[in-house]
Amino acid sequence: MARRVIIYTLDMARWEGNAQGRLEKAALELFSEQGFAETTVPQIAARAGLTTRTFFRHFTDKREVLFQGDDEVPAFVTRMMAQAPAALGPVALIVAQLGFFAETVFGGQREQLLRRHAVVQADAGLRERELRKKETVREALVGGFISRGEDRLVAAIAADVAMAVLGAALERWLGAQGDTPLTDHVNESLRALQTLMRQGALPEA
Amino acid sequence: MARRVIIYTLDMARWEGNAQGRLEKAALELFSEQGFAETTVPQIAARAGLTTRTFFRHFTDKREVLFQGDDEVPAFVTRMMAQAPAALGPVALIVAQLGFFAETVFGGQREQLLRRHAVVQADAGLRERELRKKETVREALVGGFISRGEDRLVAAIAADVAMAVLGAALERWLGAQGDTPLTDHVNESLRALQTLMRQGALPEA
Repeated sequence: MARRVIIYTLDMARWEGNAQGRLEKAALELFSEQGFAETTVPQIAARAGLTTRTFFRHFTDKREVLFQGDDEVPAFVTRMMAQAPAALGPVALIVAQLGFFAETVFGGQREQLLRRHAVVQADAGLRERELRKKETVREALVGGFISRGEDRLVAAIAADVAMAVLGAALERWLGAQGDTPLTDHVNESLRALQTLMRQGALPEA
Repeated sequence: MARRVIIYTLDMARWEGNAQGRLEKAALELFSEQGFAETTVPQIAARAGLTTRTFFRHFTDKREVLFQGDDEVPAFVTRMMAQAPAALGPVALIVAQLGFFAETVFGGQREQLLRRHAVVQADAGLRERELRKKETVREALVGGFISRGEDRLVAAIAADVAMAVLGAALERWLGAQGDTPLTDHVNESLRALQTLMRQGALPEA
């Protein structure tokens, strides 16, 4: 019996199921505990109970652990915008889809995102990479609005409005103690924008 | 007479008046001609007719030639916002001051900014540095709106609205062939935003 237990334990240690998830968890823990710059790939692999070789089957480097999957977000934005009813104007589209988008990409990961956010904010290179990532999402939005027939100026401003509402909602969701759903924060930010825009006196053409 | 001319020429070569401006011009030329990564500080100094030592009296490295003066922009934003009449709401403040701000920071430098823009866009590190710079301006705007009594959500969204309008105006100004003033592009972008916001049906509270 004792022998079977030992074999089972060894098998567990070599088991590579959900290797990506385990590497992500290990990396986030180490980045939080000792800093991003101080953490090495062999340390991450060891903490996850995997080999360095396995790490490199999933990620090109330790930085990509924090940005993994982000490459797919612009294409997701493009698809969502292409499939929305043609009759929806830019703001109606934002109202209709932003909450769903936010929930799909970020929902249910609040704790992990909070930890990740702290790691990214503590490193200048990571902060700049994060800004670049946001820029690719914004570019997908601009392209999507242009494909829906908006001119470049309106497309750019609508994309910025969507990013502003999403950014404010995410900040409040991550900062909140309670468990208000992210979609509620999106709607709250949309209302704040609406109230704001009703107050200003804009110049006549 | 010939002797005097020679002495005068030598003096010109050693003359360090407007060294900063000459170094900037030389650096932008070299970055455009041969790429940012391929350009060295000694090359920049030589093109400007100055020494490497003089270069380092004005800039910490070649990258800072492209971002020189940007450190002062957030403080300028903060001052402008603090001095504006307290009665102005966020959008009224943006309408009243954004054109002036844009003209002060960017006006009269269209050709130089176009060349700089091409250099920055061609290098990943510079693009990320540029995004970080925008982020510091945005943070100054958020802080300014909070100081004027807005809550954090409204402040964040108002800052994003200002950045969106400014960004769209700058893009159109730099891309335009004619000589429409930057402030006109700011007003045009503000009107596009207003039209956009009037169309959308936002969710009720």
